[in-house]
Amino acid sequence: MTRIAILTFDGFNELDSIVALGILSRVRKTDWHVTLACPTPTATSMNGVTVHAQSTLAGANSADAVIVGSGVRTREIAADAALMSALQLDPKRQLIGAQCSGTLLLARLGLLGTLPACTDLTTKPWVQEAGVEVLNQPFVAHGNVATAGGCLASQYLAAWLLARLLGREAAAAALHYVAPVGEKELYVSRAMEHVARCI
Amino acid sequence: MTRIAILTFDGFNELDSIVALGILSRVRKTDWHVTLACPTPTATSMNGVTVHAQSTLAGANSADAVIVGSGVRTREIAADAALMSALQLDPKRQLIGAQCSGTLLLARLGLLGTLPACTDLTTKPWVQEAGVEVLNQPFVAHGNVATAGGCLASQYLAAWLLARLLGREAAAAALHYVAPVGEKELYVSRAMEHVARCI
Repeated sequence: MTRIAILTFDGFNELDSIVALGILSRVRKTDWHVTLACPTPTATSMNGVTVHAQSTLAGANSADAVIVGSGVRTREIAADAALMSALQLDPKRQLIGAQCSGTLLLARLGLLGTLPACTDLTTKPWVQEAGVEVLNQPFVAHGNVATAGGCLASQYLAAWLLARLLGREAAAAALHYVAPVGEKELYVSRAMEHVARCI
Repeated sequence: MTRIAILTFDGFNELDSIVALGILSRVRKTDWHVTLACPTPTATSMNGVTVHAQSTLAGANSADAVIVGSGVRTREIAADAALMSALQLDPKRQLIGAQCSGTLLLARLGLLGTLPACTDLTTKPWVQEAGVEVLNQPFVAHGNVATAGGCLASQYLAAWLLARLLGREAAAAALHYVAPVGEKELYVSRAMEHVARCI
């Protein structure tokens, strides 16, 4: 059984949680579970879309892989001691990815160490303030921890997880499916370049 | 007031509804309303994500712009006479876009006429069967009706709607925000090329 949890909080950015979910769910194996993991039974996005939680923070803590989603309330979450201490993520036993402002949470959880990371342009100063160098690129991974910046860079985070968990062929196949018609080779090759640089 | 409804049915493809919603919602105007329009109070995606409807089919019928989303149940919907007759879309008074299998619904509603359209690779034979030529490209628009193929081509559909409703600058700004860091110019210029070809 492989479990991937996408941490999704109130105020979440829809693209950051959902693009990864859609791509990761292209894998058609009965023992492959991709879920939106929320601290509450539902979460409402920054633009008013309410989704039902499919798993919990505890489920994320024990998942094989976790994506920390992004949103407009990340600074509040980072300041919420109870919520932050409920997150027991561990790159020794999990693959961990952060999307956009999710990088700020990884920084605050001490999971980025001294390595440079990716995030979106809005979150950049806050991540820098947390002592982390921010790269001008969409994706980077160091060992079991990856970060991505810019909503649509979530495709690279998903591709990295697929490549690490199932191999590059599975990653390329999932990307091929979601890419625009007529641009599929372009999308797959660029994503796989980003991934190949880091694994 | 500008209202944009994204038709979202049970079995929906998450990317096809949500990428467009996220991009279109970048417009920060109080009289700008982007909603998921569903025939039921909730809709559950092809991968088990349940969302709450934000508007109804009747709301979509009177909206300024409508995107017909995609999903794994589109052929059932196309065969549902009650549901199809509840859709009263009219390109004379609305901008209408279809994403992937949404193109099949537009074909069955007679809204594509004899013009070629875009759709995803899975839906392609069904759209051809409905008598519509399918292009090997991600996006096309003829007048007030646009179609897109491949989940991530939803960015082009959203850009076209923004360009038509608010101008190219608004479209480029929204795309710039969601594009991957370090690839923003690339994403914006490609999307705007697709759009410019059709308006």
